[in-house]
Amino acid sequence: MFIADVLGGYDVYGGPKNLTPAIKSGAQWPVNEPLAMVSAMAAATESLGFGITISSSYEQPYHLARRMSTVDHLSGGRVGWNVVTGYLDSAARNLTNGASQAEHDERYAMCEEYMEVVYKLWNSSWRSDAVKLDRKAGIYTDPTLVREINHEGKYFNVPGPHFCQPSPQRTPVIMQAGTSRAGKAFAAKHAEGIFVSAHSPAAVAKSIADIRDQAVKLGRDASNIKFLAKFCPILGRTQEEAEEKYADYVQYGDYEGALALFGGWTGVDMAPYKDDEELRYVDSNAIKSYIEGLIKVAPDVNGGKWTKKTLAEHIMVGGLGATCVGTPDVVADEMERWVREGDVDGFNIAYAIMPATFQDTIELLVPELQRRGIFWDDFHVPGGTYRENLFELKGQHEPLLGHPAERMIWRAPKEEAGGTSANGTNGYTNGYHHEEEDESLDPMSMQLS
Amino acid sequence: MFIADVLGGYDVYGGPKNLTPAIKSGAQWPVNEPLAMVSAMAAATESLGFGITISSSYEQPYHLARRMSTVDHLSGGRVGWNVVTGYLDSAARNLTNGASQAEHDERYAMCEEYMEVVYKLWNSSWRSDAVKLDRKAGIYTDPTLVREINHEGKYFNVPGPHFCQPSPQRTPVIMQAGTSRAGKAFAAKHAEGIFVSAHSPAAVAKSIADIRDQAVKLGRDASNIKFLAKFCPILGRTQEEAEEKYADYVQYGDYEGALALFGGWTGVDMAPYKDDEELRYVDSNAIKSYIEGLIKVAPDVNGGKWTKKTLAEHIMVGGLGATCVGTPDVVADEMERWVREGDVDGFNIAYAIMPATFQDTIELLVPELQRRGIFWDDFHVPGGTYRENLFELKGQHEPLLGHPAERMIWRAPKEEAGGTSANGTNGYTNGYHHEEEDESLDPMSMQLS
Repeated sequence: MFIADVLGGYDVYGGPKNLTPAIKSGAQWPVNEPLAMVSAMAAATESLGFGITISSSYEQPYHLARRMSTVDHLSGGRVGWNVVTGYLDSAARNLTNGASQAEHDERYAMCEEYMEVVYKLWNSSWRSDAVKLDRKAGIYTDPTLVREINHEGKYFNVPGPHFCQPSPQRTPVIMQAGTSRAGKAFAAKHAEGIFVSAHSPAAVAKSIADIRDQAVKLGRDASNIKFLAKFCPILGRTQEEAEEKYADYVQYGDYEGALALFGGWTGVDMAPYKDDEELRYVDSNAIKSYIEGLIKVAPDVNGGKWTKKTLAEHIMVGGLGATCVGTPDVVADEMERWVREGDVDGFNIAYAIMPATFQDTIELLVPELQRRGIFWDDFHVPGGTYRENLFELKGQHEPLLGHPAERMIWRAPKEEAGGTSANGTNGYTNGYHHEEEDESLDPMSMQLS
Repeated sequence: MFIADVLGGYDVYGGPKNLTPAIKSGAQWPVNEPLAMVSAMAAATESLGFGITISSSYEQPYHLARRMSTVDHLSGGRVGWNVVTGYLDSAARNLTNGASQAEHDERYAMCEEYMEVVYKLWNSSWRSDAVKLDRKAGIYTDPTLVREINHEGKYFNVPGPHFCQPSPQRTPVIMQAGTSRAGKAFAAKHAEGIFVSAHSPAAVAKSIADIRDQAVKLGRDASNIKFLAKFCPILGRTQEEAEEKYADYVQYGDYEGALALFGGWTGVDMAPYKDDEELRYVDSNAIKSYIEGLIKVAPDVNGGKWTKKTLAEHIMVGGLGATCVGTPDVVADEMERWVREGDVDGFNIAYAIMPATFQDTIELLVPELQRRGIFWDDFHVPGGTYRENLFELKGQHEPLLGHPAERMIWRAPKEEAGGTSANGTNGYTNGYHHEEEDESLDPMSMQLS
C-alpha cells in the first residue's frame, strides 16, 4: 500500500495562492499524516508492506529515524519510505517560518546528507547482536555494542547514538518517485522501489534504462531496483461494460479539483484557457511541450487531441498515469506490454472509485494474471518483511549488496551479508562512501518531478 | 494510559556522557516514538484515553499540529498531549545540529508561542461546520469556512491554514508535568491534566493550591484542572503478602539503572558516593537539600534515613512517586488521604512489575474503591472522547470555558459553547489573548522540573 503525501495545499489553479478549488472538491485536501495510520493497519494485516511518503526537508533526521524505526518495529518490518524533498511553496511557508523552499538541486544535496545521517543511525549505531535481553545477568543491551555516529556535515550535526534498537529491516525499503536529473541520480543510488507514472510504457522506458544503467555504474545490480508503474484498470466482463463504467465514473470526478491537482503537480495554471481549446496551440510553452510529449508517447489516447476537459477527465479517472479500460484479457495484455516495452517490474494500482476498482481487480483481473502465470498465489514470505516480499528473497530484511545503507550495517562478526563476508566495522569505520554523480544523463521529458 | 517520553539517553550517572548504565539496564533506553503506537492501541480499545509526551522544542508546530489532529481523528478523540520543553542535553545535541538546549525560561517562552500557533491551527482555521461532505453538490468542504491563521511571532511564522479538518476534540487534552516556576505558570494557563509525583501528599499540596489559585486568576475554574498523582500500589490479601511482594520485586530492579534514571531526572551524579553513606551528610548541596526535602514531607519513609541504596530501591519499585505496600484497605485509605490532604483528583498508576501490578490493581484494589463509592463502574461516556471522560461531561469534546484554546474556537453561528453564546469569530479576530505571568509564586521545593 502506497500512501502519497504533501505538506501543503495545491493553490496554483486560478491562483496564485488559491486553495478554493482544492478545498471545495477535497483534492488532496485535507490530508492527514500518513505514518500515524500504519501501526493500526499493520495490526490488522500480516503481509502487506506500507510505502509512506515523508519529506526530508522539514524534520530533523534524528527524529524521523526514530519514527521510522518505531513503525518498522510495530509492523514487523513492513515499512517503506518514499523519500521526497517537497515541492510545494505552501508547505515551505508553514514549515520554515515563512521562508520559501530551497532550490531544487539544493534540496537534493540536503537530502543526500540526510540519507547519510539516517543510514548511520539505523545501521551503524547498534551492532546487530547488541540487544541481549539477558534477565539473569541483568543486561538488556550490551553497552559496548552501541556507539555514537558523530556525524558532522554541511547541513547536519548528529552525534547519536540512535535511540531505537535495530528494527527488523533496520533501513525501511527506500522508495522514490521524482524523475528530474537530480531525482534520477538520487534514485539510482538509493531507491529500491521507484514509482513511475505515464500514459504509455514508451514514456518511461528510457528513464528506467537510464536509472538502471546509473545504478550499475554505482555498483548495484540493475534488478535490485523495482519499478512500479501507476496503472488504473477499469474492468468489465465485456468491453462495453468496461466502457460504460468509465463513462459512469467520470461524472464523480470534480473538474476544478482535477485542474487544482494538475496545477499542484506541474506548477501550471490552466485557469486562463477555455474548456475545449486544443492545448497544443495555447500561448504557453510549458503546456505546449507537455501536450506534445503526451501525444508523442501516447498518440492513440484521445485521438491525439487534448483539451483542458480531456486532460481533467484523465486526471479524474486514475490520475495522470495509465488508465486501461477493458476486459481482464485486454487489461492483462496491456500490463504485459508495460513490462515488455517499459521494463517495469510491477504496478501501483490506482483507483477510479473506491472500493470498486480494487474489488474488480481482485475478482476479474487477478485470476487472469494468475492463469497467465505472472501473478503469485500468495506473498512470497507470508508474514515476512516488506523487503523480503518485494525482492522475493526469504531472509533479506536489510538492503541488498551494493546499496549504500548495506555497506553501513554493523554486523556481529559471525554474520554473513548477501554472499560476502562482513565484519563488525564493515562500511562504518571506513567512513560513508560518497559516490560521484554522473551528470551525463539525458533530461527526462515526460515525467513530473 | 500515560506514555512518558524523552528524546535522548540518561547519561549523567558516572558521566558526563556516560550512557553505559542506562543502555545496559534498559533504563529509558531504547525508547520508541510513542505517538506511532496510538492508532493501533485506539483500534483495540473503545474508551481509553492516551496521554502522549511530546516536546515542543524540536518539531515545527505546523507538523505537530497535523500529527496530533490525525491521531485524534483515528482514535475518535482520545488523544492527550503532555507538553514538555525537553530537558536533556543529549536530546538537544541530536536535534539542533550540535547546539546545546535553550535556557529553561527561554524554552518556556518558545513553548508559549508554540501553543498559540497550534491552538490557532486546531481551532481558528476551520469553522466547526466547514466540512459538508455534500456529494450531490460536489462539496467536500465549504472553502469560505477555511482560512489562514497568518501567525507572525518572535519564534514562528505560520500562515496556515491547518491541513486537517477539525478532529473530535480539535485540541487534544493538554497535560503537563513540570513544576518549576515557569512550569507552574504554564500549567495554570494551559493544563487540563497535571501529573504530580512525590512521596507524600504534603509534598504536592502547596503547589496544587498554587496552580489552582493562579488558574482562577486567569479566569479558569479551579476544578477544570485535574491533578493526577503517580502512585504505585503493591497489593496483597494480607499485609505480609504485600510486603513479601515488595521484597521480591526489589531484586528485579537494576541498581545502576535506577541511579542513571535519577541522574537524568535531576542532573545529579550519584556515582561518587558509597552505597550506605547517609545522603543528607554528603558534600553536595543539591543532594542534601533534596534529601532534607524528602525527609520533611515524608518523615516515615525509611525511618528518615536515605542512602544511595535506599534511594535506588525506591526508584526500582514504582519510581520517585508514592509507593504504597499493603492490603486493599490500607492502599485505599492512603489514596483517600492523597485526595484529602493533597487535593489530587486522581492517580497515575505506576507499576513495579508488568503486568502483575495492574492485575493486582484490577482484582484487589478496584473492588475496594468501588465498595467505598469512589471509583466508577465504567467510563462516564463509553466510547466517548478523552475530555468527556476526564471531566465527566458528556458532549464536552473541546477545552472548557476559560481555557485559552476555547476562546479561539471558530464555531458555526448557531452553536453554543459551554453556557456562553459564541460567535463565528470568537477569540480569533480579537487576537490571541496573552496573559501576564504572575511571578510572585513560591518556588517549588520537592518537585522535579
